[in-house]
Order: sequence, then C-alpha cells, then structure tokens
Amino acid sequence: MASLSRVRFVLCETTHPGNIGAAARAMKTMGFGDLVLVSPKIFPDDQATAMASGADDLLLSARCCSTLEDALAGTTLAVGLTARRRDLSHPMQPLREVVQDMARETAHGDVALVFGTEMSGLSNAQLDACQCLANIPAQPDFSSLNLAAAVQVAAYELRQALLQDRGPVGREYPLATHEELEGFYQHLERVLLGSGFLDPHHPGRLMTRLRRLFARARVEREEVSILRGILKALYPADDGASRPS
Amino acid sequence: MASLSRVRFVLCETTHPGNIGAAARAMKTMGFGDLVLVSPKIFPDDQATAMASGADDLLLSARCCSTLEDALAGTTLAVGLTARRRDLSHPMQPLREVVQDMARETAHGDVALVFGTEMSGLSNAQLDACQCLANIPAQPDFSSLNLAAAVQVAAYELRQALLQDRGPVGREYPLATHEELEGFYQHLERVLLGSGFLDPHHPGRLMTRLRRLFARARVEREEVSILRGILKALYPADDGASRPS
Repeated sequence: MASLSRVRFVLCETTHPGNIGAAARAMKTMGFGDLVLVSPKIFPDDQATAMASGADDLLLSARCCSTLEDALAGTTLAVGLTARRRDLSHPMQPLREVVQDMARETAHGDVALVFGTEMSGLSNAQLDACQCLANIPAQPDFSSLNLAAAVQVAAYELRQALLQDRGPVGREYPLATHEELEGFYQHLERVLLGSGFLDPHHPGRLMTRLRRLFARARVEREEVSILRGILKALYPADDGASRPS
Repeated sequence: MASLSRVRFVLCETTHPGNIGAAARAMKTMGFGDLVLVSPKIFPDDQATAMASGADDLLLSARCCSTLEDALAGTTLAVGLTARRRDLSHPMQPLREVVQDMARETAHGDVALVFGTEMSGLSNAQLDACQCLANIPAQPDFSSLNLAAAVQVAAYELRQALLQDRGPVGREYPLATHEELEGFYQHLERVLLGSGFLDPHHPGRLMTRLRRLFARARVEREEVSILRGILKALYPADDGASRPS
C-alpha cells in the first residue's frame, strides 16, 4: 500500500511522552509508519514505549526536528488539525472532506497531518505553515479530544479514504438458490397447514410475512437445510406430497 | 439532539479504570452520555476520574450491571465491536456501514455499542447477545486499537451518521426488544431439545447458527409472536418451564 507510506504524522511540542506512544500505536493500527516529532518535551521515554504497546518500531524510527518547517520538508500538502476557530485563518474543513484531498494528493507527493500540543493545540505560526486546516466535528461544549484519540480518528479516516476502492468483502457461505428457498417455503406452508396453525380458508398474510422475514436475512444454503430439518423433526407427519417441494 | 441520547455505550469487564475514564471522555466529545459498565474490575477509581478529564459526569451517572443481559435490556439493536473473525458468527460489517443502521434505528428505539475487554475483546456468548458485529477496518497485522481509541472512533462515526441529514426512513413495524428475542431463542431451544432435534450432549453450534440467521433479519416484535405461535402449534408439549422465557 504505497499510499499509506506517503503520509507523515507530525506531533508538535508534545508534553507527555505517553501520548507520543499512544499516538504511535494509533498510527500503526491504521497502517501508517512515518512519525515526526517537533521539539517533544520528553523523548525518548519509557512511558512512550509502554503506551506504544507494540508500536515501538515507530518510536525508534521517529524523526525529531526542532522546527515545523523541517518536519514538513518535502511535503506537498500539510493539514493542521485544530478545534479552534480563528478569525483570520485558512478555511477549516471537516476531517472527512480533507482526507479526500489528501488521498488524491498521495498520487503525486507526500502529505502531512499536523497536531499541536495537548493544552493549546497549534500556534498561529504553526497553523500558517499548513496549507489547510481540518477539524474533527465534535460536541461544541466539550470538543477537545485527547491527542492520541485525535490521531486515531484522523488515521482511521485517512485509511478509509486511501483504501476506498477496496473490493467487496467476500461472503463466506453460499446463499440459498431461489429453488431451495421456495422448497423451504412450501415445506413450511404444508407444516403450518397440517398442524392447524394456518387456516386454509383464512390464510391472511402469514406466508407473506414469513417470506419477508427470511428474505431480509438472505438465507444461506446450509441454513435452509437446518430449517427444513427442524420442520421435519417437529412435524414428521409431512410427506412432502401435497405440493412438490 | 434526541438521537444521541438513544445510544448506549456498554463496556464489558474492563480491566483498567483509566480506560473507562478515557472512554467516557471520548464519548462526551461526540455528545454521548449513556455509559454502562458490565462487571468492571475496578470502578469507581481515581484513575478513571483523572483520565476522564472533564467527563466525570458520565462516570457519576454510569450504570454498573453484572451481566450483559441487564446492560442491553430495552435495546432494539446491539452492535458488538470486534477485531476477531470467527467461523460461525453474525456477519461482520465495517463500522461505517453499521452506524447507518444504528442511526436509522434510533428513530424507533435504543441502540447499544458493546466493547469487550482490553485483552481478549468480547467472548462468544457476548457476541451472541448482539444482533450484529462491527469491525474497525485496520492494519491486518496490528489491528488492535486501544479500548478508548476504539470508543473514540465508534463515537465519531456514529455522531457523523446521526447528524447527517438523512430523511427519516419509515420503519413499518417496531423491532423486537432484546428480552423478546431472548424469550424466542429460549423457547426455540426448549422445543429443539424436547423434539430430539438438538442433542443436549452434542449441541454443536446449532443455536448460534439460528441466532445468526434471525439476527441478520432484525426480527420485528410481531414476528416474534408469529414464530412463537408456530413453535407452540408444532410442539404443544412445551410448557415453558425448563427455563423462564
């Protein structure tokens, strides 16, 4: 997945090393590996390694930079994540829109997602270094995600955008054919008639409702066998004769 | 936003209280408030409060239950989050698809998102109590998100789905509640045992397969009545006594 390696996660002046570790784990779950730290307060650190729980390879290969400039060198699109609204800033887009732009751009160059400090986010100068700003839509009166949580959501969204054209998830078991389903419905109807549950003079919409129920489930071939086995066990008197099954 | 209050987040047997706090914060950033804890190892706890950083109101109002049954009482759609693939389970859908179903269902009833333990996720019995399973698409060889990170992503996706401007999709009939469905499954199991179709010494995965079939259909309340009527007609010997239904 070449496109995943085109994405750089940049954490600016992170205060708690545990958050760096948790962010690394979040990135790795979504297939990203390029972590860049701008002037982290404490790094490397045991807390970072502990919170990475298995993503310590990202910590080992992380680049430390002293400026955001350095961290963004070579990128063609840098997106700053921010909850803040500023009067004079780049337009802020919701994350889900921005990742589409980022995904397209990975065909051509490297892109970056930039995260600010835990307490105050990105500074104005840092925001200005980004080409666009994204926010994670959240509850207005409690909108501040934990840093690693924000990295997780952004990585998740970006992965979805990058891998969008995935083929359909394969179905594990074959569905019943039309004939198999009809055989089951006929069997069911005979049993319901034979047992007296279904009144042939006032059938109402019972069979229609049952068909509707099983149709919604998209019954598999093997399930038809199970259901017919149950009918046979509960109503052995049925000889399958009244209608062809 | 009435629909946000229709969503219950259920954490099963959480080991670390800090994760409960972080999950509460994640929920609150997305506007959710209904937290239910099934047999948490340690709760309440200072670590939980510390990690909630401002979402301690959710911890104060959290309900503790001893069983998942209790936690799901009254819900009409329970979705289990899992990274595992089992051979025979309910179909697993990507989170982004499932939240659409959940959003639609909130027009009619309460829905739940169910999360397992940090180490091993949801047990098979817990998975069976859910109507459908969702997974967060992740890197295959490193797919395990931190619990609070998974809650954050799920809450984010669900908020996006709930606040989307979909026109209301009319559901004609109310879905069965968790209790109604369980009553049906118990009735069915008694009948299958009584009739000899289900061997109590070699039950195999029959009940799981049947649950899976009906779960896919999202059974309506009235359909449960029809199905139980059929069981009664075909196996009148059942007196409902072997287990409470």
